[in-house]
Amino acid sequence: MTDELRGIGASLTDSWPAFDNGVEEPQPLPAAPLPAVRPSVALLTDRYELTMLQAALADGTAHRHCVFEVFTRRLPPGRRYGVLAGTGRVLEALPHFVFEDAELAYLEENGIVDRRTLDYLANYRFSGTIQGYVEGEVFFPGSPVLQVEGTFAEAVLLETLILSILNYDSAVASAASRMTSAAGGRPVLEMGSRRASEQAAVAAARAAVIGGFAGTSNLEAGMRYGLDTIGTAAHSFTLLHDTERDAFASQVASLGPGTTLLVDTYDVRHGVATAVEVAGTGLGAVRLDSGDLGGLAQEVRKQLDELGARDTKIVVTSDLDEYAIASLAAAPVDVYGVGTSVVTGSGAPTCGMVYKLVARADSSGVLQPVAKASANKASVGGRKAAARRYGRDGHAVEEIMVTGPDTAVAEWTPQSDDLRPLLAPMVVDGAVDSRWVGPYGVANAAINHGMVRAELPRGARRLSDGDPAIPTVDLRLDDLLD
Amino acid sequence: MTDELRGIGASLTDSWPAFDNGVEEPQPLPAAPLPAVRPSVALLTDRYELTMLQAALADGTAHRHCVFEVFTRRLPPGRRYGVLAGTGRVLEALPHFVFEDAELAYLEENGIVDRRTLDYLANYRFSGTIQGYVEGEVFFPGSPVLQVEGTFAEAVLLETLILSILNYDSAVASAASRMTSAAGGRPVLEMGSRRASEQAAVAAARAAVIGGFAGTSNLEAGMRYGLDTIGTAAHSFTLLHDTERDAFASQVASLGPGTTLLVDTYDVRHGVATAVEVAGTGLGAVRLDSGDLGGLAQEVRKQLDELGARDTKIVVTSDLDEYAIASLAAAPVDVYGVGTSVVTGSGAPTCGMVYKLVARADSSGVLQPVAKASANKASVGGRKAAARRYGRDGHAVEEIMVTGPDTAVAEWTPQSDDLRPLLAPMVVDGAVDSRWVGPYGVANAAINHGMVRAELPRGARRLSDGDPAIPTVDLRLDDLLD
Repeated sequence: MTDELRGIGASLTDSWPAFDNGVEEPQPLPAAPLPAVRPSVALLTDRYELTMLQAALADGTAHRHCVFEVFTRRLPPGRRYGVLAGTGRVLEALPHFVFEDAELAYLEENGIVDRRTLDYLANYRFSGTIQGYVEGEVFFPGSPVLQVEGTFAEAVLLETLILSILNYDSAVASAASRMTSAAGGRPVLEMGSRRASEQAAVAAARAAVIGGFAGTSNLEAGMRYGLDTIGTAAHSFTLLHDTERDAFASQVASLGPGTTLLVDTYDVRHGVATAVEVAGTGLGAVRLDSGDLGGLAQEVRKQLDELGARDTKIVVTSDLDEYAIASLAAAPVDVYGVGTSVVTGSGAPTCGMVYKLVARADSSGVLQPVAKASANKASVGGRKAAARRYGRDGHAVEEIMVTGPDTAVAEWTPQSDDLRPLLAPMVVDGAVDSRWVGPYGVANAAINHGMVRAELPRGARRLSDGDPAIPTVDLRLDDLLD
Repeated sequence: MTDELRGIGASLTDSWPAFDNGVEEPQPLPAAPLPAVRPSVALLTDRYELTMLQAALADGTAHRHCVFEVFTRRLPPGRRYGVLAGTGRVLEALPHFVFEDAELAYLEENGIVDRRTLDYLANYRFSGTIQGYVEGEVFFPGSPVLQVEGTFAEAVLLETLILSILNYDSAVASAASRMTSAAGGRPVLEMGSRRASEQAAVAAARAAVIGGFAGTSNLEAGMRYGLDTIGTAAHSFTLLHDTERDAFASQVASLGPGTTLLVDTYDVRHGVATAVEVAGTGLGAVRLDSGDLGGLAQEVRKQLDELGARDTKIVVTSDLDEYAIASLAAAPVDVYGVGTSVVTGSGAPTCGMVYKLVARADSSGVLQPVAKASANKASVGGRKAAARRYGRDGHAVEEIMVTGPDTAVAEWTPQSDDLRPLLAPMVVDGAVDSRWVGPYGVANAAINHGMVRAELPRGARRLSDGDPAIPTVDLRLDDLLD
């Protein structure tokens, strides 16, 4: 080490003191444990939402009536549809978007906003209206998956939280849908908690189930959303015991012969033989978590059948994604367990949804469409209504965005039999419609997804790269009424 | 629509009822809002940790003394080093890993574990020992970044939570370090909250700062970890106003001329001219969020200088990653704002760290090394000590993993001047060392990262694909003592 660097090593070696960071005084060590999470979600927010609020409160525009829309400009490369998830979580979070003493003190002490803004925040409750696509619905470029209407002040504050939730949850649900599609009728289980941030893992489990997964390993998600949970043992359990046989015997004694035994800690063939010896031919399943899963599944199926364990299922769980699942279609696999790839959106870990002001009242209170003109980021101004058009064979053919005079668009419902409207009320005058939240909301979202996916053109379910399954079509209200 | 599909549309159209999901009775609507998060982190856990516990409690092995190690088998493709982040958050979470009435009731009512296990969980507090690399440290394949020692029961329960935190936080810190490296001395700001799950966004901001970022837009992260927060206004603020000039005037009146004005809502050249007219030549900065940032920055710098605003900085913020930052090295950019790419790990959204049992007591209480033999997932058994070896020029040359008799490895400290030990005590007999948590822990981690990155061979900071910057070398204790 150079002398300069040696100092570092020395300071680290020397009973691992805290560094002299030279910036601030050493802080007192916390007396009580720091919280792992805090109940208010109000500061899960970009600072600029609050500085914009401050300026708008000062100039009076904060109270202008506004319409914000959440949409994505494009799907991830090659994807044919997206799956909306997270709406229920947005609605669950809304009552917790409150600025209480701790939040206000932080904002004040750090000079983030002024007194007038603090007073506004202290009384903040969202009192506007939210409409959106029903959770589990598919979406395409431009689909207004959520519409938030209220004063600028109350609506702009929600931007970061809404996007955080919808972007991640929808990324997971979109990946999950491809996986359950690739799996055909075989169940797919979510077991990726360890590859997602700890609270994101709960959202991921929920979103995966909306995308068609049959269950999750995540207990918190099971508790909060009534999801089926799964899981029996890891390699560490086998290694803990003196022999693989001891481990299997212990697991069967504890969980019954219907359990799933992990047979690849040492030698798979030996593991399968021991598993059936210990559990009998009524063994529920064996799990393979390494190696060439297709070839291995063939061998294990043959071995199980020869041992008389014809009903013992084969679960595979090693680094699967939609392509690996598809490649195992001909293998004797009964259940897929997916981890990393589903919780990270299988190559598209966020959706790129944006929260854009599309209309706001002018100084005389009349709603005017607005849109920026930035390069590559231009968007269509004005509130949108949305509907999906169906062909004679019952399949979706177009995603229709309707624009026009604001009141007419807001009140529009399709008169034509081939159009299905896509925006449903979620929050009215600040009151959350509880049909869309909790376990019931998730169950409905999963059913909804199964139905709407079945309506897509056949090509939508191909895994290969392609264009969006149906085009997004902008229509003026006048054109529709013709 | 076919008749079958028509029913769906009809049911959705018909005042958007909840679906008849045919599976469960309609549940009562929640009387009180569902919580957005819950204080206990104990169920952020894969179910199999609890079922393993149940079986091990029944057969007596639950109380065997164990050593688990967290490490990654490989870095993401092409990466030359990883950056450890999340350790402080693990330590902060530990006191909240408690099973209280709500958790126990869920586990009991859903038959997840038996009575004996419930009783164990009700009294659960981690009472073991944790050592690890200091947060901000770099790591390589095999580096034992965390070592957890205790009974099987107490240590296995923490697996999922520890991996969730370390895998995500380290993915972000690793990406962040490449970005700050590419930026040279220019500040890089984290503004990706909307592209990460809402609580993950807080962790991401923290990890980005450990990787060298100068601040974050995330207020919760600012509050919890004492980070500098940044942000002024979005396009919606300009669109809210009747003219861009009105918006700029309002912002300057509220935040002062030192603020950053977003000048690309309509026409950049016009926006810059208006910005300087409104704020004067003392304008703090202009922000460019679209278009060809390099070319635009040249033009804007020229325009600002001609207007006399020579000290007005240029902030760029559109879809930057380490490569885009590097490509702007010659452009007159003062500050980079990074969103999506840092919070999603710039192509590597999780680290692939695993939590492996490496040693456990046998039936006579003697610690024995253990390792599985699974294809492609074999690992070295036994507790490891770790040290980094330095060459004469002060740069790191090897990551050394020391194995041997357990007690000797546990007590090993390098006697040689060219070796720096890497494992520091974090938790002793269940007591968290508070030097590593809270704002102080983050500040230290960021400083630590700057120091250890400077020690890496020069090639480590290349963005192009390559091998790990230094090799991981396994040594037996006997070899070292020679």
